[in-house]
Amino acid sequence: MDSMTWIAVASIVIAGITTGIGTMAPAVAEGKAVATALTAIAQQPDASPTITRTLFVGLAMIESTAIYCFVVSMILIFANPFWNYVISQATGK
Amino acid sequence: MDSMTWIAVASIVIAGITTGIGTMAPAVAEGKAVATALTAIAQQPDASPTITRTLFVGLAMIESTAIYCFVVSMILIFANPFWNYVISQATGK
Amino acid sequence: MDSMTWIAVASIVIAGITTGIGTMAPAVAEGKAVATALTAIAQQPDASPTITRTLFVGLAMIESTAIYCFVVSMILIFANPFWNYVISQATGK
Amino acid sequence: MDSMTWIAVASIVIAGITTGIGTMAPAVAEGKAVATALTAIAQQPDASPTITRTLFVGLAMIESTAIYCFVVSMILIFANPFWNYVISQATGK
Amino acid sequence: MDSMTWIAVASIVIAGITTGIGTMAPAVAEGKAVATALTAIAQQPDASPTITRTLFVGLAMIESTAIYCFVVSMILIFANPFWNYVISQATGK
Amino acid sequence: MDSMTWIAVASIVIAGITTGIGTMAPAVAEGKAVATALTAIAQQPDASPTITRTLFVGLAMIESTAIYCFVVSMILIFANPFWNYVISQATGK
Amino acid sequence: MDSMTWIAVASIVIAGITTGIGTMAPAVAEGKAVATALTAIAQQPDASPTITRTLFVGLAMIESTAIYCFVVSMILIFANPFWNYVISQATGK
Amino acid sequence: MDSMTWIAVASIVIAGITTGIGTMAPAVAEGKAVATALTAIAQQPDASPTITRTLFVGLAMIESTAIYCFVVSMILIFANPFWNYVISQATGK
Amino acid sequence: MDSMTWIAVASIVIAGITTGIGTMAPAVAEGKAVATALTAIAQQPDASPTITRTLFVGLAMIESTAIYCFVVSMILIFANPFWNYVISQATGK
Amino acid sequence: MDSMTWIAVASIVIAGITTGIGTMAPAVAEGKAVATALTAIAQQPDASPTITRTLFVGLAMIESTAIYCFVVSMILIFANPFWNYVISQATGK
Amino acid sequence: MDSMTWIAVASIVIAGITTGIGTMAPAVAEGKAVATALTAIAQQPDASPTITRTLFVGLAMIESTAIYCFVVSMILIFANPFWNYVISQATGK
Amino acid sequence: MDSMTWIAVASIVIAGITTGIGTMAPAVAEGKAVATALTAIAQQPDASPTITRTLFVGLAMIESTAIYCFVVSMILIFANPFWNYVISQATGK
Amino acid sequence: MDSMTWIAVASIVIAGITTGIGTMAPAVAEGKAVATALTAIAQQPDASPTITRTLFVGLAMIESTAIYCFVVSMILIFANPFWNYVISQATGK
Amino acid sequence: MDSMTWIAVASIVIAGITTGIGTMAPAVAEGKAVATALTAIAQQPDASPTITRTLFVGLAMIESTAIYCFVVSMILIFANPFWNYVISQATGK
Repeated sequence: MDSMTWIAVASIVIAGITTGIGTMAPAVAEGKAVATALTAIAQQPDASPTITRTLFVGLAMIESTAIYCFVVSMILIFANPFWNYVISQATGK
Repeated sequence: MDSMTWIAVASIVIAGITTGIGTMAPAVAEGKAVATALTAIAQQPDASPTITRTLFVGLAMIESTAIYCFVVSMILIFANPFWNYVISQATGK
Repeated sequence: MDSMTWIAVASIVIAGITTGIGTMAPAVAEGKAVATALTAIAQQPDASPTITRTLFVGLAMIESTAIYCFVVSMILIFANPFWNYVISQATGK
Repeated sequence: MDSMTWIAVASIVIAGITTGIGTMAPAVAEGKAVATALTAIAQQPDASPTITRTLFVGLAMIESTAIYCFVVSMILIFANPFWNYVISQATGK
Repeated sequence: MDSMTWIAVASIVIAGITTGIGTMAPAVAEGKAVATALTAIAQQPDASPTITRTLFVGLAMIESTAIYCFVVSMILIFANPFWNYVISQATGK
Repeated sequence: MDSMTWIAVASIVIAGITTGIGTMAPAVAEGKAVATALTAIAQQPDASPTITRTLFVGLAMIESTAIYCFVVSMILIFANPFWNYVISQATGK
Repeated sequence: MDSMTWIAVASIVIAGITTGIGTMAPAVAEGKAVATALTAIAQQPDASPTITRTLFVGLAMIESTAIYCFVVSMILIFANPFWNYVISQATGK
Repeated sequence: MDSMTWIAVASIVIAGITTGIGTMAPAVAEGKAVATALTAIAQQPDASPTITRTLFVGLAMIESTAIYCFVVSMILIFANPFWNYVISQATGK
Repeated sequence: MDSMTWIAVASIVIAGITTGIGTMAPAVAEGKAVATALTAIAQQPDASPTITRTLFVGLAMIESTAIYCFVVSMILIFANPFWNYVISQATGK
Repeated sequence: MDSMTWIAVASIVIAGITTGIGTMAPAVAEGKAVATALTAIAQQPDASPTITRTLFVGLAMIESTAIYCFVVSMILIFANPFWNYVISQATGK
Repeated sequence: MDSMTWIAVASIVIAGITTGIGTMAPAVAEGKAVATALTAIAQQPDASPTITRTLFVGLAMIESTAIYCFVVSMILIFANPFWNYVISQATGK
Repeated sequence: MDSMTWIAVASIVIAGITTGIGTMAPAVAEGKAVATALTAIAQQPDASPTITRTLFVGLAMIESTAIYCFVVSMILIFANPFWNYVISQATGK
Repeated sequence: MDSMTWIAVASIVIAGITTGIGTMAPAVAEGKAVATALTAIAQQPDASPTITRTLFVGLAMIESTAIYCFVVSMILIFANPFWNYVISQATGK
Repeated sequence: MDSMTWIAVASIVIAGITTGIGTMAPAVAEGKAVATALTAIAQQPDASPTITRTLFVGLAMIESTAIYCFVVSMILIFANPFWNYVISQATGK
């Protein structure tokens, strides 16, 4: 197994793991936030615009952590500097 | 075991793991959101349109994290740049 | 152990694991949703059509994550591009 | 240990694991659903037909995830394409 | 360690594991269902026929998942196609 | 370490593990059921015959899963087809 | 390390593990049952004969799972068929 | 590392593990039982003789599972049939 | 596998892991904070400006820990001093 | 690494582990019992002699499981039959 | 793999792990503190200045533990004495 | 790595582990006991002498389990019979 | 890999781990203390000076455990006696 | 890797681990004790001297377990008898 293969394998594995694990917490957190929003609306229907607005800001914040993971994952698959270096070495050699 | 095999195996393994693990949290989160929605409707039937609408927006947000995992999984199976590179090497050689 | 065997073993293992693990969370989530629906009906029998309808939409969303896993599993067993490539190599060789 | 053995062992192991693990969550979820149904009936005996009907639909949905696992398990034991390929190779050789 | 031994060992191990693990969740779920039934009867003695009937249907559903595991376990011990194939090879040879 | 030893060791190990792990959940479940029965009797002493009867049926169902494990364990120690085959081979040879 | 040693070591290890792990759940379950019995007596002193009787039947059921483990453990130490076979081989040889 | 050493090491390790792990659950269960007894006495001081008696019977049952583990542990250290066999072999040889 | 490959692989793996794990806790914490904010608004709509302001300060503090992880991850991919040193060695050599 | 060293190392490791792990549960259980006793005294100061007496009996029972572990640990360090045998062999040889 | 590589790899791995894990607890703790602050404000709006001030002091204390981890991480990447020593050795040689 | 080193390493490792793990449970248990004592005093200030006295007896019992671990740890570092034997062998030789 | 490298790697790894793990519990504990303080102030605003003072003393005690870890970590990086000894050996040689 | 290195590495690793893990439980326990103290003061401000005094005694007891770990850690780094022995051997040789 040469260098290139190791780097490719590592990139594949970590790209999957990062997205797979990194989206767990945001999903759970969003589920909790949405659930509480529904409870809050049921309890105080008059405040539903404020609740909905706060909910969406919060969901955006939480989603951002999932985005970080997805971004790292995409960088590792499509813009991996280590892979590019190795390819350029293999090509230029 | 040559390079190609390693990359193929890693892609297969990670494709399965990413989807298998990555859909757990969204499922749980959706279950929680749906459950709370049902409680909320039972508690305040008059607010059911607002509740349902908020629920669907929330479910879409949560489902999005499952989609990320599924997308990474599909990329690894059907549009894997590392695999494509290795195949092109093997073919062009 | 040659390449073909590795790929076959990995596909078998991951097909099973993905389905085995990936259906856990949907099952639990559906159990929770159904349980809450029953509580809600008992608490507010008049709202049972709304509750039932929301429940079914929610179950469909949750079931979708189990379907993703089952689909990946079937792809790995019956439409595995890596396996097909290796077979075509072995045959064409 | 030759190819055939590896594939056989992997199929045996995964067939058992998939069913063993994959039926845990449905069992727990069904237990929860049944338990809630009993509580709901005790609390609102008049709604028992609605409750029972919703319960059975829910149990069917949950059972479906256990079925997925059992199906994958049976496919791996009795209709395994990788095993069939290897057997055909061994026979035709 | 030859092929036959590997397959035998894998079958033994998985037969035990599948039953050992696969009966945990049903047992817990049945315990929960029975416990709730007892609470429900204590709370609403008049509904005890309905409760008992629903309980038994539920227990049957839950027991079915334990049966799946036991069936897989028995198949692996007494009707294992991989073992049969290997035996027939060893005998016919 | 020859074949026979491997099979013997695997049988010993799995026989112990299956019983050791497989009786945990039934024990816990029975503990829960008994505990709830006691609470129910304390709460509604008049319903104690119904409660006791339902409890015993439930305990029997739960105990059945422990029995499955014990049966598999005994089969592996005293009626193990793989061991018998190997012994017959060793004897007949 | 010869066959006999492997079998002896496996028997020792599993005998200890089976008892060590297999008695955990019964102990916890009995603790729970006893605790609930005490609460029930404190709450309804008049029902104490019924409660005590039900408790003892329940403890017997739970203790039975611990007995299974202890029995398997003793079989492995003092009536192990695999060990006996190996000893007879070593002696008769 | 010869046979005798392996058996000695395994006996030492398992003797410690069995006692170390096997006394955890009884300790926790006794703690729970005692705690509930104290609550029950505080709540219903008149029933303290009945409570104390039931408590002691229960503690004896729970302690019995710890005794099983201690017994297995002592057997492995001081009356180990496998060790005795090996010693007799070493002596008689 | 030479030095460069090891460093590249380690950087890839850790970059993914750090982001994947390090964003879990912030996501959960933000979900909790948002959920409580919604409850608080529903309970005391008049205090919603104070609540919203405190929420945003808190979210910023929590998000900062996710940022730390993302920063470390980016440093490891794009500004890794160890990688730069190795590259300069390889180039200058 | 000769036999003597293995046995010494195993004894050291297990002596520490047994005490380290085996005293966890008693400590937690005693903490729970003491805590409940304090609550009970605060709730019913008149019953404090009965409570204290029951507490001490219970603590003695719980402490006994910690003593078992400490005893096994001391036996392994200072009265280890396997070590004594090996020493006597080394001396007598 | 020479010394330098080992040290580089260890530094990379630990830098990531320390930040990734070490920021989890502060994030969760801050989430809890913020959540309680919001509840407290909703419950007692008049005390909001005191609450906010105490909250910020507390957040600073909690954030300090995250800073420790980040500092260790930065030291390992940019001011690592072991790496510097090895580099100076390599250079001076 | 010779015998002496193995024994030294094992002693060091286990001395640390035993103290590190063995003091966790006592600390938690003492925290619980102290916390309950504070609650009890707040609830029934008149009983504070009795509460304090019972608390101190309880803390002494709990601390004793931490002492066991510390004692084993010190024995392994400063009065280790296995180490002494090996040293005496090395010296006397 | 020579001695020096091993010691350097171990120091790096442990320095990171100790700080990374050792600051988790203090962070959580401080979060809990701060949260309770906020609740207490909201409940009893008049006692806020006493509460704040007690809180700060408590935070200092808790922070001290995080400091221990940070101190050990810094000792391992900048004042490591084992590293110094090895360096002095390497230099003096 | 010679003896000295092994002992040094083990000492470093365990010194860090012992402090890192051993301070977790005290921190959590102190957090709990402080939190309860704050609640108690808020509930019964008149008893605050008694509460504070009991709290400090309790914190001292809990802190003592953290001290044990720190002491073991310092002994291993600065007064390690095994290391001293090896150094004296190396020097005296």
